[in-house]
Amino acid sequence: MDLFFLAPLSGAIGILFGFFLWFRVSKVNPGNKRMREIAAAIHEGAMAFLNREYRTLAVFAVVLFFVLGFLINFNTALCFLAGAIFSGAAGYAGIKIATIANVRTASSARKGIGEALHIAFSSGSVMGMMVAGIGLLGLSILYLIFRDPAIINGYALGASSIALFARVGGGIYTKAADVGADLVGKVEAGIPEDDPRNAGVIADNVGDNVGDVAGMGADLFESYVSSIIATMTVGYLLFQADRNIGWVVLPLLVSSVGIIASIIGFFFVRSKEGVRLGAALERSTLVSATIVIIASYFLSTALLGQIGPFLAIIAGLLAGVIIGKLTDYYTSYHFKPVQELARSSQTGYATTIINGIALGMGSTTLPIITIVVAIIIAYLASDIYGIAIAAVGMLSTVANTVSVDAYGPVADNAGGIAEMAKLEPHVREITDELDAVGNTTAAIGKGFAIGSAALTALALFTAYTQAAQIDVIDITQANVIVGIFIGGIIIFFTTSHTLNAVGRAAFDLIEEIRRQFHEIPGLLEGKAKPEYTRCVDISTSTALKEMIVPGLVAIIVPIIVGMIPLLGKEALGGLLAGALVTGVLMAIFMANSGGAWDNAKKWIETGHFGGKGSDTHKAAVVGDTVGDPFKDAAGPAINILIKLMSIVALIFAPLFF
Amino acid sequence: MDLFFLAPLSGAIGILFGFFLWFRVSKVNPGNKRMREIAAAIHEGAMAFLNREYRTLAVFAVVLFFVLGFLINFNTALCFLAGAIFSGAAGYAGIKIATIANVRTASSARKGIGEALHIAFSSGSVMGMMVAGIGLLGLSILYLIFRDPAIINGYALGASSIALFARVGGGIYTKAADVGADLVGKVEAGIPEDDPRNAGVIADNVGDNVGDVAGMGADLFESYVSSIIATMTVGYLLFQADRNIGWVVLPLLVSSVGIIASIIGFFFVRSKEGVRLGAALERSTLVSATIVIIASYFLSTALLGQIGPFLAIIAGLLAGVIIGKLTDYYTSYHFKPVQELARSSQTGYATTIINGIALGMGSTTLPIITIVVAIIIAYLASDIYGIAIAAVGMLSTVANTVSVDAYGPVADNAGGIAEMAKLEPHVREITDELDAVGNTTAAIGKGFAIGSAALTALALFTAYTQAAQIDVIDITQANVIVGIFIGGIIIFFTTSHTLNAVGRAAFDLIEEIRRQFHEIPGLLEGKAKPEYTRCVDISTSTALKEMIVPGLVAIIVPIIVGMIPLLGKEALGGLLAGALVTGVLMAIFMANSGGAWDNAKKWIETGHFGGKGSDTHKAAVVGDTVGDPFKDAAGPAINILIKLMSIVALIFAPLFF
Repeated sequence: MDLFFLAPLSGAIGILFGFFLWFRVSKVNPGNKRMREIAAAIHEGAMAFLNREYRTLAVFAVVLFFVLGFLINFNTALCFLAGAIFSGAAGYAGIKIATIANVRTASSARKGIGEALHIAFSSGSVMGMMVAGIGLLGLSILYLIFRDPAIINGYALGASSIALFARVGGGIYTKAADVGADLVGKVEAGIPEDDPRNAGVIADNVGDNVGDVAGMGADLFESYVSSIIATMTVGYLLFQADRNIGWVVLPLLVSSVGIIASIIGFFFVRSKEGVRLGAALERSTLVSATIVIIASYFLSTALLGQIGPFLAIIAGLLAGVIIGKLTDYYTSYHFKPVQELARSSQTGYATTIINGIALGMGSTTLPIITIVVAIIIAYLASDIYGIAIAAVGMLSTVANTVSVDAYGPVADNAGGIAEMAKLEPHVREITDELDAVGNTTAAIGKGFAIGSAALTALALFTAYTQAAQIDVIDITQANVIVGIFIGGIIIFFTTSHTLNAVGRAAFDLIEEIRRQFHEIPGLLEGKAKPEYTRCVDISTSTALKEMIVPGLVAIIVPIIVGMIPLLGKEALGGLLAGALVTGVLMAIFMANSGGAWDNAKKWIETGHFGGKGSDTHKAAVVGDTVGDPFKDAAGPAINILIKLMSIVALIFAPLFF
Repeated sequence: MDLFFLAPLSGAIGILFGFFLWFRVSKVNPGNKRMREIAAAIHEGAMAFLNREYRTLAVFAVVLFFVLGFLINFNTALCFLAGAIFSGAAGYAGIKIATIANVRTASSARKGIGEALHIAFSSGSVMGMMVAGIGLLGLSILYLIFRDPAIINGYALGASSIALFARVGGGIYTKAADVGADLVGKVEAGIPEDDPRNAGVIADNVGDNVGDVAGMGADLFESYVSSIIATMTVGYLLFQADRNIGWVVLPLLVSSVGIIASIIGFFFVRSKEGVRLGAALERSTLVSATIVIIASYFLSTALLGQIGPFLAIIAGLLAGVIIGKLTDYYTSYHFKPVQELARSSQTGYATTIINGIALGMGSTTLPIITIVVAIIIAYLASDIYGIAIAAVGMLSTVANTVSVDAYGPVADNAGGIAEMAKLEPHVREITDELDAVGNTTAAIGKGFAIGSAALTALALFTAYTQAAQIDVIDITQANVIVGIFIGGIIIFFTTSHTLNAVGRAAFDLIEEIRRQFHEIPGLLEGKAKPEYTRCVDISTSTALKEMIVPGLVAIIVPIIVGMIPLLGKEALGGLLAGALVTGVLMAIFMANSGGAWDNAKKWIETGHFGGKGSDTHKAAVVGDTVGDPFKDAAGPAINILIKLMSIVALIFAPLFF
């Protein structure tokens, strides 16, 4: 099938386009000496984080490589290594470009908002193109080599492992650095936020890149490759029935079109002064999605002679867009929910917390109904293949999604650099405007990440039932109900663990910042430089340590449940379903509560209900602080866990016979 | 089967024993004029609440009566009315005796702790005996009349409706009154807590009785009768196979023994000065449970010729005890979790909230593993009949459980009366000691209520699959997965609604208290009496109004899901499973977070981490305020909803063919 070669080809095109953008961004003037110094420190810190993370990961990967090799087979183990290395490479590129672009965005902002947007969005697009391009290229090469979806499952597990480290470890790291740096700096030493004398301040700035660039990228990389692989697995069975290889190739081709469509979409992002920034980003998303929809119609009818898969793809794509919009509604201060939450801060801390929690829990209804409707449409259109290909549809324009999303932290960092380097006020105004749009796109991105994780996990669940040769998972059987309960427990247990972990990791950083203030002579007077990398290194290592428990739970519990005779592979199916439903509810709840608290605080800071410094503001700040580990650590960790457990089940299925 | 008549007989004995205790309590000296006045006001308020509630309920019951009559049949509708009336009668008796006993407990405390404990526990036992006695008597009479478990399902629905009003409406009422009275009284008017000039103060005191006596009683009444009925339904099918009526009669007989065992257990509660109070209550529980276990062995082998059901009963009973103990561990300040939570209040509001939430979520693991193990044992011992009879086992000593539980609010109220009537300090010390034990038993009772709701819902789910003639509910089918998602949404949606409802209902009460301060001349000077009943009436009616949405969702959504061709009865099965798993997790999380915050505050008040008035204490107070609607409104509402939805599914099953 010649069409098949479109997949590695468009993957390569995506990567090349990413390098082209990278080259262009790196040519931009990085600003004055002070700016370059700060940027260098952030860059240095980010690299310290990555080094530490990849070192730990290497041990983990080697162990898992041999476990997979001996328990399953060495081809799967090789694919696993490839997945980990490729996802790691995409994350490396993303952080590298983000730390190059932040200072250049700040320096371009001196010329105008159009230039600054261009740099920030270009750097986001580097990450986007790398995620999609590397993901698809690697996947299609491995498929060309092994010609068996069962083996390339290993690739998804590799991606999942990186996502676990980047998203869960990174999430804990980010919030610990945030809390730790603030507490010692502002409260104890009495120096301002973002002050370079604070040894933890670079760790904090690094955190933005780690969480929102590398973490989000790894999360979507995982969803992207997993949804394609799951669809190929289901498609392979259909192929065995009717000898039409189209079932296997379709997800690859839809993804190929998605990369090209995202490149085209890139050129639709333009902003002149006065034009709404958000609209510029939305236009690119719209263009990419439209191209994918049109192409999917032709692919679906040409390859399979039916429009069923096409309808499923539309359902997935639209669901992604709608969930993003709903997330925006519940977390942006332009709408009633957040404004009402801000109002409730007038009556104090407790009402802020209760209303924020109620908002988050209530905000799960519509997104999940959206997912449910997409599932029904996809299923009616093309049975379980429809559910899997709907996930592919939702994720086909992932290059665009990541671009829009990774642009935010770059703009955020640019603002920080402008502040620290004391640039002209209008520069900060421009970066603030970019940042405000970035907050919205970040919220939309979080919603999209959860929605796509849900559909991907469902697609993997479907693939698992095929791989484990399960006909029926009957919840009237006690072992299946028990499995569903265990799945639910895992979500609550790990969420509890992650929330506590942030506190513990912050404590380690606090100790180190204090030590540096005491032991480095002249630090507080600004005569000596703090050891930024030590702080980064310490909080990276404690964050990674805290990640061990949820990681092991997600890998080992499914295998144990699947192997225990009393429970078995059907109970494992129940576990996946229980974790999926509970996980999606909790992930949306935590992301939206956190986002709403954040923006309620910002709404008050724009002058409502007494503004900054009022009692209302103080209450809102507490809400924001509670929301931070919700939305940036515990919530995103759930995305990873529900996918990781499904992949583990899929790969280890041969053990459950 | 002559043994069968033991059921109505022991039900009647329970009721008679309840009346005997009632008579004895009412003979006790009610104290001085001031005490009697306060008690009269609380009594008057409680009756105002009940009147308002039962009036609203009457409308609801009449509508549902005709709906049931026309859609199902009028026998079921009659059973429904009987269930509502009988459960209402038990609640009425419970509130009546609680408001008689509170002042008598205070007055007996002047003689010593033994006397006070005796009165408080006797009054709790009145409620306990009424719940079990009325429940079993009504159920067995209806079964004698109709001889068909399918019809007496209506009885469970009636009990469920009362539980909905008493537990959900009552929960919202309780917390709204608490918040409203405090806010206007302490903050605005500057008068102390529990000051009789505050029109809302009686509403607040009434709330304790409404939530912890009537609400808890109705909740367990519902679990009690539902678990028996569900087991009879499953047993009826086994009877049709082997013509052994023992399958149907066993749950009735186990429950009969439970009542007698609880009466015997009553006489083991004795306390001399210096003997640990909690131990006295535990002894009675232990005695009752042991009697049930021994009797179950003989019943199981004699009626069915096998020990399977006996093992299932033990599994259920033990699970109930273990869950209670675990709840105590996570929420009592004698153990590490709450002490650590109190410590985290030292670093402020946000850490208090984050750690309390993490504690609650983490505390779901062990109780649910306990439930899961009980399910596995029961299933292995006696298949799905085992799961149902395990719930009966757990609830067999419900008379004892309710006694221990309802004793708490009586002691609490006694303390309030002692305070308001300015009795000697040693009286207050004694009531405080009783109250402290009451807090522990209340926490254990909450854990037990959740555990029993979980097993009961599972038993009802099993009965539903039989009634709807479902062979398999296969989660690899899209409609079933969709059902599970919908079940999860319902829990999060209603929890969000309930949390918000507390705020709205409190607001209505605040308006009324303010109005009375403005419009009643001489009120603040103590020359005029406020209109307590108006406050009770207003917040009752708004609380009941807020209950409509969750109530309708729980009744209508399952019916719609069952009837829509795309979803159907299997999707409804998925809905029940999704709601069960999500609901149990959320109920335990909210109950334990709330309980832990409450006791962390109390731990600080005993002099730790700076004691009362310190910043640490202020942070802990915010935790407690957040926890109040968690543990007393939103959490308990979930118990009711998961059972109610299962009963609705069971009764309307004939519509889904």
